[in-house]
Amino acid sequence: TEIRTAILTVSDTVASGSGPDRSGPRAVSVVNSSSEKLGGARVVATAVVPDEVGKIKDVLRRWSDIDKVDLILTLGGTGFTPRDVTPEATKSLIEKETPGLVYMMLRESLKVTPFAALSRSVAGIRGSTLIINMPGNPNAVAECMEALIPVLKHAMKQIKGDKREKHPSHV
Amino acid sequence: TEIRTAILTVSDTVASGSGPDRSGPRAVSVVNSSSEKLGGARVVATAVVPDEVGKIKDVLRRWSDIDKVDLILTLGGTGFTPRDVTPEATKSLIEKETPGLVYMMLRESLKVTPFAALSRSVAGIRGSTLIINMPGNPNAVAECMEALIPVLKHAMKQIKGDKREKHPSHV
Amino acid sequence: TEIRTAILTVSDTVASGSGPDRSGPRAVSVVNSSSEKLGGARVVATAVVPDEVGKIKDVLRRWSDIDKVDLILTLGGTGFTPRDVTPEATKSLIEKETPGLVYMMLRESLKVTPFAALSRSVAGIRGSTLIINMPGNPNAVAECMEALIPVLKHAMKQIKGDKREKHPSHV
Ligand code: NA
Repeated sequence: TEIRTAILTVSDTVASGSGPDRSGPRAVSVVNSSSEKLGGARVVATAVVPDEVGKIKDVLRRWSDIDKVDLILTLGGTGFTPRDVTPEATKSLIEKETPGLVYMMLRESLKVTPFAALSRSVAGIRGSTLIINMPGNPNAVAECMEALIPVLKHAMKQIKGDKREKHPSHV
Repeated sequence: TEIRTAILTVSDTVASGSGPDRSGPRAVSVVNSSSEKLGGARVVATAVVPDEVGKIKDVLRRWSDIDKVDLILTLGGTGFTPRDVTPEATKSLIEKETPGLVYMMLRESLKVTPFAALSRSVAGIRGSTLIINMPGNPNAVAECMEALIPVLKHAMKQIKGDKREKHPSHV
Repeated sequence: TEIRTAILTVSDTVASGSGPDRSGPRAVSVVNSSSEKLGGARVVATAVVPDEVGKIKDVLRRWSDIDKVDLILTLGGTGFTPRDVTPEATKSLIEKETPGLVYMMLRESLKVTPFAALSRSVAGIRGSTLIINMPGNPNAVAECMEALIPVLKHAMKQIKGDKREKHPSHV
């Protein structure tokens, strides 16, 4: 079994070629190094889009509906600036919200900096794909992943419909 | 005064007769033993439905709009599996969200297990009925109730429109 | 630079002249005394409306769309009573939710009293205006503001589109 993972960098700067993608490669490396803890996570796709709702949605839809990846991590576009629209794009596509995952990331990130409260990250399920917004800061990506490791493997098994995983102890 | 409480077990297994209802009776017993702390809570109805949005909504609507119970606890269907739809059914019916109650349950349950983050529980008000999603695990029901006991009595008085209860100190 | 702030007291009692506005003046005083920490916050408008969705929305719309204030604090109407509708009025107007700010207020207020869980406060962005619901209790207003001080200045700079503020460290 494996968790087919796709990583979407959302950034006007990177998409326009005005700056390097620091968070994307960092996320790939975090997923690879935590692969076993994540139940066999493997990065199968990466992409970069500007901070535009339509372009973000196009990629999320393709990856979930056509490529049927198991897990999508978006990086960036979760703040308070006028261009930050990743949470809105995500909300419009997910069928089920998973606020507990957002809480785990927020609680962990707040231990590092109060500015974590400025993340508007959303997480949820579309079909059999789990979509999680993460901030664009490369360190934040690592922290958020760390916060999710205790539950992500079970989350993925539940999404795939494994009944034995339904009540690992509390859900 | 009393808090007329109804308990809905949401489970394909129980509804089809393939397994016993462990969480329903446990919730009844928790409500009864905490009755005084809960402002006089008394179980006036219980039911079992499969994990289907329409059937969950039918019962929630009948209990809130016709029977006008004060408090509805749903048990189960809050996880990540494809059949888990209790939060979606609940969201479509509540007129006001009460996220602070969800937070109290999550914070308390996370002390027991990180898998509490996989609960997608929703809570909110429809008319004069408070509806709270709880996980299906019998132990989780007891923990969630424990987390709510400090505030549920005041919550119910506010919903019934008691102005003196409006600012017990902070709301 | 300054943060043009408007404060809306939502209360049937105050609006009808049946009681004094205790939370409004307290909020003005809290904003003034924390002005520097808040990046130069200055109260430019105050108003009182009854607990009615339409009247709350009218003022929020005028202040954000026409007067283009930077920050709106609403006081009251966040509880569980039938008349409490400030969160619903706010939700219907904001374009982006900012749940991290709600969490900061809730976490801080819960240190003072469990009844903080009965606040249904919402926060979010409309255009370039940040709207934050606070409870009506005068002490709660001070506590909520205290909870937001570490991040509000950066939040306001981001809303105004300052790119340098985009990644103070994590967002
Ligand atoms: Na906490």
